Amino acid sequence: MNPPEELISYIKDHDKFYIVPHMFPDGDALGSALALESALCGIGKKAIVFSRDPVPDMFDFLPEALRIAPISDLTSTEDATLVLVDCNAPNRAEIDRVKFKYTIVIDHHETESDFGNIRWVVPKSPATGLMVYFLIKALGIEISPAMALNIYTALSVDTGTFRYSNTTAESLAVASELVLKGVRPSFVADRLYNSWTEARFMLLKHMLYSLEIHNNTAICFITNDMLKKTGAKPEDTENFVNFPIMINSIKVAALFKETGKDFWKASLRSRGDVNVAKIAEKLGGGGHKNAAGFRINGDIETSKKTLLESLDGIGESSGGD
Amino acid sequence: MNPPEELISYIKDHDKFYIVPHMFPDGDALGSALALESALCGIGKKAIVFSRDPVPDMFDFLPEALRIAPISDLTSTEDATLVLVDCNAPNRAEIDRVKFKYTIVIDHHETESDFGNIRWVVPKSPATGLMVYFLIKALGIEISPAMALNIYTALSVDTGTFRYSNTTAESLAVASELVLKGVRPSFVADRLYNSWTEARFMLLKHMLYSLEIHNNTAICFITNDMLKKTGAKPEDTENFVNFPIMINSIKVAALFKETGKDFWKASLRSRGDVNVAKIAEKLGGGGHKNAAGFRINGDIETSKKTLLESLDGIGESSGGD
Repeated sequence: MNPPEELISYIKDHDKFYIVPHMFPDGDALGSALALESALCGIGKKAIVFSRDPVPDMFDFLPEALRIAPISDLTSTEDATLVLVDCNAPNRAEIDRVKFKYTIVIDHHETESDFGNIRWVVPKSPATGLMVYFLIKALGIEISPAMALNIYTALSVDTGTFRYSNTTAESLAVASELVLKGVRPSFVADRLYNSWTEARFMLLKHMLYSLEIHNNTAICFITNDMLKKTGAKPEDTENFVNFPIMINSIKVAALFKETGKDFWKASLRSRGDVNVAKIAEKLGGGGHKNAAGFRINGDIETSKKTLLESLDGIGESSGGD
Repeated sequence: MNPPEELISYIKDHDKFYIVPHMFPDGDALGSALALESALCGIGKKAIVFSRDPVPDMFDFLPEALRIAPISDLTSTEDATLVLVDCNAPNRAEIDRVKFKYTIVIDHHETESDFGNIRWVVPKSPATGLMVYFLIKALGIEISPAMALNIYTALSVDTGTFRYSNTTAESLAVASELVLKGVRPSFVADRLYNSWTEARFMLLKHMLYSLEIHNNTAICFITNDMLKKTGAKPEDTENFVNFPIMINSIKVAALFKETGKDFWKASLRSRGDVNVAKIAEKLGGGGHKNAAGFRINGDIETSKKTLLESLDGIGESSGGD
């Protein structure tokens, strides 16, 4: 993967960069921003990461994470160049209120806008962190252990540590290089996958207890009462809908999360060719083929029934593969 | 990693190899044996894999898995050379009854015996599959897509798909090469991690329902009644003890599996410096620092109490790290 020449020479010729990840930053957004910041500071430039949201607890191990500034501190651009990472529209980072003279976008998501004087958007890249790795190399900067850990984490988060279909030979080769720079893969995996709070684990237990299987569809729910009982936070439900998909006979998994009395937000996941985006659209929501969602008003039994009727045997029809 | 010259030239000079993985073969044993078989057959040698046990359902996707012969078919050596893979003593493969003129051992486990005319044992290798990869390369054989899938699976199983502490830069670099040879990482990950039977998933639910947390220790149990109710098999409990270790406050996890009325087999896992081998030894069992086990006779409440007393605050004492 080759960063554009224009980007490399622009960075070489300028000295001040404000690096901004998307709101609710994940491991790829944070790791990419922090690695780029270290690299630029390392060659004597001024670089600061500004984030709308604080670093989630699970990512507090990322090197330099404590140096991230709140975006409210960014009142004037002071002639700095904006570098938007892991998103390509300023509203995704809530930075649209600040006007920059010059802006750069480094992202692997599908384009939402034509924002950015220099746009480096590679949807085929499994992670923005991988792009930042090649940018740092192209700038002739040695990858430090801290940069390596930030990039390895970015890559791990966005590829499920090399389990998702976006995992490329190139990403494994870069991971190998990063281990040579000092990353311990089990340290990162432990932080990402074995650092659940007890409250979150108990919430999972409650969710699994609500599991019902109808043909090839698994349905679970999480109520506000469960959150209260366990002390878990709403964000603790992240990825929970993927648990029932571990079952080989399940084609569609749904998780209903209570947002208010008789109000639910449902997440859908599917295997292979089953398209849950279509189901979600029927119910007023949307999303991608294998990951979609919708909102529904009604008691839980009625809501489940509505979903099952919309699925209309979709799981069964593809049950033969 | 360099295979011994003696091994390379012996293989080049001989034509008939019986390749035998350990009993209850896992992904590393099977993938290693099958990749080596394909490689040797590919250069015109006769090579057959013999296994004491059938291929577990979860590994039926391995290329050539159907060609594995039952070890009962191996009545005469017919001047073949034995290649023991992923173990280094013939009793681990239940092949001690057959006498071979010449024997080779390829393994990454600690040595149990001095069996083998040529012994290539590398305890530092994360998987036997990785050693087989370098052997095939050293023999000058092109890695086929089938060999690549077998080796990638071997490597994935023994490193938890690059999450365990044995994951090396070399293993990631080889994984990258194997992807270039046609392996799809998500296909392997789906087969290894998202192919649970419904019965197994329901058993997990029951196990989690039995979960109790005492300070930094998590205790679960699985009864024969739970197996009956869910239709799960005893081998379905594999890795279950790792679930409670996902909780960041848990230093020791224990799973009691009922083996008969008031008889239990307990598996222990620990985090970091907590040594459960010592605990298991106190209770008449054994194992490694972070993974050990013991057998106990008594009702479940008494058995749990005995364990907790043996732990004697071990989890708490290391609670500060």
